[in-house]
Amino acid sequence: MTRNPQLNRHGELQHLLTIDGLPRNILERILDTAAPFTEVAEREVKKLPLLRGKSVFNLFFENSTRTRTTFEIAAKRLSADVINLNIATSSASKGESLLDTVDNLCAMQADMFIVRHASSGAPYLIAQHLAAQKREHIHVINAGDGRHAHPTQGLLDMYTIRHYKGAFNNLSVAIVGDILHSRVARSQIHALTTLGVPDVRVVGPKTLLPADVQRMGVHVFHNMRAGIKDVDVVMMLRLQNERMQGSLLPSGQEFFKFYGLTEEKLALARPDAIVLHPGPMNRGIEIDSAVADGSQAVILPQVTFGIAVRMAVMSMLAAT
Amino acid sequence: MTRNPQLNRHGELQHLLTIDGLPRNILERILDTAAPFTEVAEREVKKLPLLRGKSVFNLFFENSTRTRTTFEIAAKRLSADVINLNIATSSASKGESLLDTVDNLCAMQADMFIVRHASSGAPYLIAQHLAAQKREHIHVINAGDGRHAHPTQGLLDMYTIRHYKGAFNNLSVAIVGDILHSRVARSQIHALTTLGVPDVRVVGPKTLLPADVQRMGVHVFHNMRAGIKDVDVVMMLRLQNERMQGSLLPSGQEFFKFYGLTEEKLALARPDAIVLHPGPMNRGIEIDSAVADGSQAVILPQVTFGIAVRMAVMSMLAAT
Amino acid sequence: MTRNPQLNRHGELQHLLTIDGLPRNILERILDTAAPFTEVAEREVKKLPLLRGKSVFNLFFENSTRTRTTFEIAAKRLSADVINLNIATSSASKGESLLDTVDNLCAMQADMFIVRHASSGAPYLIAQHLAAQKREHIHVINAGDGRHAHPTQGLLDMYTIRHYKGAFNNLSVAIVGDILHSRVARSQIHALTTLGVPDVRVVGPKTLLPADVQRMGVHVFHNMRAGIKDVDVVMMLRLQNERMQGSLLPSGQEFFKFYGLTEEKLALARPDAIVLHPGPMNRGIEIDSAVADGSQAVILPQVTFGIAVRMAVMSMLAAT
Repeated sequence: MTRNPQLNRHGELQHLLTIDGLPRNILERILDTAAPFTEVAEREVKKLPLLRGKSVFNLFFENSTRTRTTFEIAAKRLSADVINLNIATSSASKGESLLDTVDNLCAMQADMFIVRHASSGAPYLIAQHLAAQKREHIHVINAGDGRHAHPTQGLLDMYTIRHYKGAFNNLSVAIVGDILHSRVARSQIHALTTLGVPDVRVVGPKTLLPADVQRMGVHVFHNMRAGIKDVDVVMMLRLQNERMQGSLLPSGQEFFKFYGLTEEKLALARPDAIVLHPGPMNRGIEIDSAVADGSQAVILPQVTFGIAVRMAVMSMLAAT
Repeated sequence: MTRNPQLNRHGELQHLLTIDGLPRNILERILDTAAPFTEVAEREVKKLPLLRGKSVFNLFFENSTRTRTTFEIAAKRLSADVINLNIATSSASKGESLLDTVDNLCAMQADMFIVRHASSGAPYLIAQHLAAQKREHIHVINAGDGRHAHPTQGLLDMYTIRHYKGAFNNLSVAIVGDILHSRVARSQIHALTTLGVPDVRVVGPKTLLPADVQRMGVHVFHNMRAGIKDVDVVMMLRLQNERMQGSLLPSGQEFFKFYGLTEEKLALARPDAIVLHPGPMNRGIEIDSAVADGSQAVILPQVTFGIAVRMAVMSMLAAT
Repeated sequence: MTRNPQLNRHGELQHLLTIDGLPRNILERILDTAAPFTEVAEREVKKLPLLRGKSVFNLFFENSTRTRTTFEIAAKRLSADVINLNIATSSASKGESLLDTVDNLCAMQADMFIVRHASSGAPYLIAQHLAAQKREHIHVINAGDGRHAHPTQGLLDMYTIRHYKGAFNNLSVAIVGDILHSRVARSQIHALTTLGVPDVRVVGPKTLLPADVQRMGVHVFHNMRAGIKDVDVVMMLRLQNERMQGSLLPSGQEFFKFYGLTEEKLALARPDAIVLHPGPMNRGIEIDSAVADGSQAVILPQVTFGIAVRMAVMSMLAAT
């Protein structure tokens, strides 16, 4: 991986695999491109011909109806032909390797792969394989790989922050919860630091923070009250239920007591602070319903902007 | 529920949740609107642009490929973008509540929800939630909720009866079978009485009739021969297999003997009587194959009219 | 079956059920029709309006994501409305018979059924049922039935051979592997003999060859080296994993030793011989990776041509 595999030789976005290493101008261009797509969604006819006649494959090796739906909607609003392949539950692969599956779909003239995989790096592997075959007209979007990255989620978070706060260069942002297992958190940290946020904080118990998280340029807090003090943006993470069954956490109730976002804790942030959550929420575990449904939450606008951001990425890739 | 939640303030159809309480003029307008759509289906290009650029979600919390298919076809023939969400088998919800799921799809600019749910009232709950948020441009169609209602099935039955009998005001109609557990029967009874059918009969064993069924304005028969004597229309219900395993019924064979529709029993109805069934049929349990495939059966035309009725409801809602 | 049920009274293709009995001019016309569709796939907008407004049902009683995908892409590129019905895993049928399901979909104005079924003859049964009802405007394509046939696979193999070899009348072709359980092999043999290939060979152990295979006009070899000596085309078959668990075969490793295609064995064929495989491949069992990824393999072009051949068949049927 000597050259950034998601940029072509002209420095344009060829694939979207991770926010890590994407230059600031590319991130900003994605956000700028997304803006007009939010207006498309308000029209009577929510349809643009930008991907007409293109074949977009939702290649989901890990089930996620919610994420699949957002990409399916984005692609259909761009007039693409969308084919859903749920390979986790399908016997289709019949033991076929990942790359044999990809080669076959390329032979069917795929134009774009939206890839979700439990293994970190699977979308990279596909992108490198395509590059080795000089298939530059086929594009890969990472829709979540293992603990590694979920770049469109990170991008929609950035779009949301910019929408409400105008700029990044004077913000304090706290990311709260299970940083260790979160691909979303990694994408968020890379995006925030690249876009110039001067104060990025991660807040969580030691057992849920990566050992070397400071190296990513963030401030670490184990006490939530200290961690969200005077911040402009609180980004809550989803607590995976499976974590609570192990030894990492005492219980959901206990977690809520220390790291759940309540109105009382939120009062420590700036009065105009916004609250983000990638969904689906565990109400009463990482977030209180009063906050989730309150006036500072921008959780549903995140979803709306997420469609626009995905349309932006798809249309940029298709134009490369 | 002081005001009928499925009508807007102008008395137009905002949602289709149940036939119960729908005024006669709305029922008749749906049937009138459906008529030209039956002709679309005969064309070379079965496609109208009425829902172009609209996002229709098949939100199925209970699996029903058959019902889902009819709505999917209807929506696609109206040029909508259709997204199927089979939430029963999906891990997508991840414990998320019904209304959080709905809020998320609304944030994706959904235009219409087709809702199937094992719990009576789920589509109502969604409609009330949308009303509370002043989301008047989003519409809900009930595709079957618990034992409560299945209004498009009731409407297609009415379309079928009107098609073959011309009018409702001089008819005798018998509904035969498991009235107690049937959401279809409840929708049919409401529709028939609202449209002015003077003689609506329900026919079945005591164990499969609701205690207060007379209050719905029907005549009750436990003897099938008496119940279908001289009727113009026989509406058979599907016997749920799971009922036969309990104590409510001795056996399928026994049921057929008393309440199965045979040619011999059908001869007691008027010579031009028609036979309806919502499908899928249990041949040899509630209906004999000789009748199911006979000249008086209009079971397949029901399916055809069902597509047209669903196109009519969708296009009326989209125009509201 | 006195008349070929897949031809109409004018001798045109009404259904595609099997290659067995299809006249040579029909086979050639399908291959000729497919040629321009390979160019569509290279265009920016891979879309033709030939099936616009048509309802194509993928009626899969046996799961096969791969085959379903190829038909779905072909139909969507012809602008059809595609509805996927995975009846194997669905509770939709609720005990309904195959023909009741078909009748219902016909009543929804289906135009074309793509049928996959574990039972040999299921697509025939549907075609005969449609004929009995004089539904000549509805077409059936067999996408694999039991051990019987998989005609579009056979046709795409013929397209591939013609593409690389120009003509059929001077070729030696070897089909290698589990002939006994392969619907693909049966379709291939019928196609090759009909198109005039003078030397068709089948190669495999006695336990995996049908007893009367000679009657199909082929030469039988149990020794692979003899069987592929000087051939122009090697058609490898997929070894079903389930076969290896029974008593028919010692082990995958053993099979590979005798019947796996290696570079060393392939060197016995003509230097310009091509290698086909229907996919998905079991690397190291029926084929060595060096061959699968080598310069003589045309396995991925087969996939590309398969989309064009399916578009050709669909458009020919729709025009009948």
